[in-house]
Amino acid sequence: MTAYPSVNDNLDLVLERTVDVAPELVWKAWTTPELVVQWFAPRPWSTSSCEIDLQPGGRFHTVMRSPEGEEYPNTGCILVVEEGSTLIFTSGLGPGFRPQVAGDDFPFTAIIRLERAGNGTKYTATAIHADASAKKSHEEMGFVEGWSAALDQLVEVVKGR
Amino acid sequence: MTAYPSVNDNLDLVLERTVDVAPELVWKAWTTPELVVQWFAPRPWSTSSCEIDLQPGGRFHTVMRSPEGEEYPNTGCILVVEEGSTLIFTSGLGPGFRPQVAGDDFPFTAIIRLERAGNGTKYTATAIHADASAKKSHEEMGFVEGWSAALDQLVEVVKGR
Repeated sequence: MTAYPSVNDNLDLVLERTVDVAPELVWKAWTTPELVVQWFAPRPWSTSSCEIDLQPGGRFHTVMRSPEGEEYPNTGCILVVEEGSTLIFTSGLGPGFRPQVAGDDFPFTAIIRLERAGNGTKYTATAIHADASAKKSHEEMGFVEGWSAALDQLVEVVKGR
Repeated sequence: MTAYPSVNDNLDLVLERTVDVAPELVWKAWTTPELVVQWFAPRPWSTSSCEIDLQPGGRFHTVMRSPEGEEYPNTGCILVVEEGSTLIFTSGLGPGFRPQVAGDDFPFTAIIRLERAGNGTKYTATAIHADASAKKSHEEMGFVEGWSAALDQLVEVVKGR
């Protein structure tokens, strides 16, 4: 059993879309580092590296690169892995569930849910935050637009374009 | 599979003892709120309430009361539940894996491991921290002495004294 995070409109951000690729392929794109680097950062940003240890307590690490070539590493902890349907990870803990030194950024927990919808996937990405100001900062950084653009790229990668 | 936290002597604190009660009973004492309130806070402190939702993402909540009657609530998130052998929870996240607003305290993740040792239990409680200063603060608060005194109380409760 898992106590799934309950979404709170005052604190959380949700991207919900249906895409025309199967959940198995979306799952593979999210959990395979060689694929993640191809779609994770919305262009013109890119993802210069990715490491994933796909189990609770495992490392979820990406380095995003700005158009100017500056690199932004992010290391979080995987919390829940339900093959093909649910991936939960957080920037609030590091690998092995170790608390992280608080940086300038707000921590968030991401919930990626995949449900079969015809031949496609109902895709729900939720970012949950400690407080309304963290939600607001994430919203202003363009969470919904950015994750939506990245999802378009994910679909392109899966379709082999 | 779970990626267990790896202990780092520079960052972490460990209490390791063998007690003469079976792992099943130690597990029950750790995971049953009506029992937790009887042993969790080293005397003369006490535990005025406890709530446990024993699953990953579930709530781990205690209120400790000082001898002067001041109450100190703590709410964390359960991360790993391996019946009878391993309980991992963290103050770095709240219930449902939600990041917590950073307070004055350092966050830590607790790993309780129980192994059968004859008729008793090898008991290992580890507190893992983000950095050496959090370890130092926790050490100076008396983690090892406090958790050891609480373990003595747990054994008393289990033995029905």
